[in-house]
Amino acid sequence: MTHQPQSGARATGQFTHLDEHGHAHMVDVTAKPPTLRIATARCVVVTTSEAIASLDGSPGGIDPIEAARVAGLQGAKATGSLIPLCHPLRLDAISLDIRLNENHLEIVAICQIVERTGVEMEALTACALAALSLVGSLLERDPTAVVEELTLWHKSGGRSGPWQKMTHEDRAGT
Amino acid sequence: MTHQPQSGARATGQFTHLDEHGHAHMVDVTAKPPTLRIATARCVVVTTSEAIASLDGSPGGIDPIEAARVAGLQGAKATGSLIPLCHPLRLDAISLDIRLNENHLEIVAICQIVERTGVEMEALTACALAALSLVGSLLERDPTAVVEELTLWHKSGGRSGPWQKMTHEDRAGT
Amino acid sequence: MTHQPQSGARATGQFTHLDEHGHAHMVDVTAKPPTLRIATARCVVVTTSEAIASLDGSPGGIDPIEAARVAGLQGAKATGSLIPLCHPLRLDAISLDIRLNENHLEIVAICQIVERTGVEMEALTACALAALSLVGSLLERDPTAVVEELTLWHKSGGRSGPWQKMTHEDRAGT
Amino acid sequence: MTHQPQSGARATGQFTHLDEHGHAHMVDVTAKPPTLRIATARCVVVTTSEAIASLDGSPGGIDPIEAARVAGLQGAKATGSLIPLCHPLRLDAISLDIRLNENHLEIVAICQIVERTGVEMEALTACALAALSLVGSLLERDPTAVVEELTLWHKSGGRSGPWQKMTHEDRAGT
Amino acid sequence: MTHQPQSGARATGQFTHLDEHGHAHMVDVTAKPPTLRIATARCVVVTTSEAIASLDGSPGGIDPIEAARVAGLQGAKATGSLIPLCHPLRLDAISLDIRLNENHLEIVAICQIVERTGVEMEALTACALAALSLVGSLLERDPTAVVEELTLWHKSGGRSGPWQKMTHEDRAGT
Amino acid sequence: MTHQPQSGARATGQFTHLDEHGHAHMVDVTAKPPTLRIATARCVVVTTSEAIASLDGSPGGIDPIEAARVAGLQGAKATGSLIPLCHPLRLDAISLDIRLNENHLEIVAICQIVERTGVEMEALTACALAALSLVGSLLERDPTAVVEELTLWHKSGGRSGPWQKMTHEDRAGT
Repeated sequence: MTHQPQSGARATGQFTHLDEHGHAHMVDVTAKPPTLRIATARCVVVTTSEAIASLDGSPGGIDPIEAARVAGLQGAKATGSLIPLCHPLRLDAISLDIRLNENHLEIVAICQIVERTGVEMEALTACALAALSLVGSLLERDPTAVVEELTLWHKSGGRSGPWQKMTHEDRAGT
Repeated sequence: MTHQPQSGARATGQFTHLDEHGHAHMVDVTAKPPTLRIATARCVVVTTSEAIASLDGSPGGIDPIEAARVAGLQGAKATGSLIPLCHPLRLDAISLDIRLNENHLEIVAICQIVERTGVEMEALTACALAALSLVGSLLERDPTAVVEELTLWHKSGGRSGPWQKMTHEDRAGT
Repeated sequence: MTHQPQSGARATGQFTHLDEHGHAHMVDVTAKPPTLRIATARCVVVTTSEAIASLDGSPGGIDPIEAARVAGLQGAKATGSLIPLCHPLRLDAISLDIRLNENHLEIVAICQIVERTGVEMEALTACALAALSLVGSLLERDPTAVVEELTLWHKSGGRSGPWQKMTHEDRAGT
Repeated sequence: MTHQPQSGARATGQFTHLDEHGHAHMVDVTAKPPTLRIATARCVVVTTSEAIASLDGSPGGIDPIEAARVAGLQGAKATGSLIPLCHPLRLDAISLDIRLNENHLEIVAICQIVERTGVEMEALTACALAALSLVGSLLERDPTAVVEELTLWHKSGGRSGPWQKMTHEDRAGT
Repeated sequence: MTHQPQSGARATGQFTHLDEHGHAHMVDVTAKPPTLRIATARCVVVTTSEAIASLDGSPGGIDPIEAARVAGLQGAKATGSLIPLCHPLRLDAISLDIRLNENHLEIVAICQIVERTGVEMEALTACALAALSLVGSLLERDPTAVVEELTLWHKSGGRSGPWQKMTHEDRAGT
Repeated sequence: MTHQPQSGARATGQFTHLDEHGHAHMVDVTAKPPTLRIATARCVVVTTSEAIASLDGSPGGIDPIEAARVAGLQGAKATGSLIPLCHPLRLDAISLDIRLNENHLEIVAICQIVERTGVEMEALTACALAALSLVGSLLERDPTAVVEELTLWHKSGGRSGPWQKMTHEDRAGT
């Protein structure tokens, strides 16, 4: 073994040094008290009315809408393993709603937790995976199906307080 | 980016609507206090005495009983990612015991947690995966091996209090 | 570093030794040609008629039957990561059917692959996870719900040829 | 055990019945020959120029662009476990490119495989997870960051032959 | 079904028996109060200076150092699913630092949590997976690359109090 | 949906550009024929004889040696999801052997596959995870337990042909 081991003094120094410079890759949240956090995210899947009609499913097959809900739910729980900089969390509640419109589907996810960090990414991941699952079911009929407007709509809890996405109406003063 | 956002009034209304109707797909448990929860589950694997004898393992190979214990343990920890409607939990303790009898194996799993929700599904999943792992080791000798009686036997903690499965003796008044 | 490194000669000898004794923990299948393999597994979930009626789901919630189908599907794909001695496989097809009867649910899963090893464990895992998901949905109404008769029913492909579970009628000569 | 076991004849009939009705939940692809499949997907993340400037990363922290690339890569490999109706695949190649523009980021993913089924969903999932990872890094500065235009752009291989998304220029005849 | 069900009395007895003998396979930690736990682990990857120079990456490719950091981070979060006897934890913070020296790379990981059990294994797993990822990037140029000195360096929190690895200098009395 | 799509000319140009520069993040292996690949890796865990004696396990608990074997096996199968730049593979065979010596444990893993890419990383990951699992079992008795010499020992198959690590004896001309 030709590798020259580091002297202990330097090694110990380095660990301290590391702390000093705060090379925290997953941000430290131990100092924050656990509080109730809620986040809402939303997206749409734009497609054709024919493709949406096909989502009713063939008899005996899995319902594509239900499969997408489950994909969203399981995605929300897996957020920490899917997104490198996210903390692993044990969500206390998830709501995932899919609405069929004439030429698009609308997905809204709400996540809740009593924790030291927020659940914005969990709500966004739930929407994204539900949308991907729907696109997978639409793809044979409509390879041009597109996911749009995937964004956070609302959050509450934590130091920064509640936040709500401003809309055109809000900005116009109504 | 010229994308036309949805009007805020409708969008906000929809989210509220969602809340009103309580479309909670993974039930909200944030209002419950964390308490000690314990659950016990059990199942049997019915097979032949020859197949059970073969579980001693070939020298050098992995012990099928130990592999099944690990499968059960890891399954219990993965319950939230395997069962869509289950909360993700960080179990505080798991016991998994496998007993060899003449023509069947008996599996008992006990899970514990200090949490807002119970661990019944974790104990059942531990039993099921240990049983599947055993069936996998038995299959070449006995393709008719069958998992029976996979059920909850006991739980305590939480609002509903302790519960114990009634047995034939209990029902007979002994 | 006080650890005494092993001499190369002994180390090389050990690897050969390992080969000689065939300590294959996940059995070697490289010599087998890929062929079409099919396996069918089945189980039942025994419960009360009231609990089965409750599976219709609350409006807006996820359908428990659909969630169980997805749990079974995803479980079949995850078999290699759930069962230590199973090969990781990329299944070519999965069918999972759930039937509601008066006081029990019946689950049948069929898996297919063109591969060097069979898919019996994938079909059994699909059934087990669908059953666990259903039990999770039934548990509040019926904590005595029990999974029974989880077993292989049919397999074809591979060296050993087709196999079918004998039933009472078969044994009686009808 | 009061459950009345099904007679073998009916049980066998049911399995055949299942086959007849083709309740294939993950579509059977065993009859297709493996061919080279390529798919390209793309999306954008719309945000502010200040937020994009912050992606250069703090010294010592993980580079958010590199983290997003890895998230996309790992997401592509996990597609089968994230999307219920997708086959599990072992991708032969993945390219994932992220471009920084003044007020948006552009993500392009290309997946390749020699297989019986296409990789459209893998390319879309790679884009979606890279986008989610970027949004996670942008969220503190810009909670309004939004993922747009997540869609398939090109695919080749398989029975249906090559397909390319038509653009405005294509439609206008240029 | 010829299996002879166990009488309830014996079954109940067995569960108690199990408790008495404390067959806890994942140690029970419910009685411990949650406290701040910190653990530091470290390892080196010994290789050639030419191979280290190649880690700068080809233009457009993923940076191997960043990929290794992400592998370490994700590995730390997955410790409970990778190591059978480890509790599943939701880490509050992870730092992972990689230093390039002339003929070796040094990896230091620090994990933090407010929990009932320590994070030593999480810090070690972070180092191991970052090291494996680096070896994977080095392998084409240097198949002899070797991971050395993977060990715990420091821990604090919990009943046993702080602990620090003694170094050569410590032992020499400096 | 009034969203303004990007012009096709620029988008198409970008995809071609991407191809030209070969931004392949997971290297393309579609052009290689599948051949039999074998790789052997090895490491040691250095500890005290007292700690090694404690690995016999408490009666009723899981055998730490068997748990480590399973951790190694499952780690090898998960390599593609743990190491960003690794292809996902479906291993055809894994051997994992652990030997107890007076003050160290020796781990040897052999992986086999018929595939377009090698299994060196799978063998190394098997060793690393078995070693981590053992360290986890040793940690209470010996927090100084250290993993050493984790490296590739042998590989065969593929374009570059067989390769064997040179040992001291080899170098000395014996």
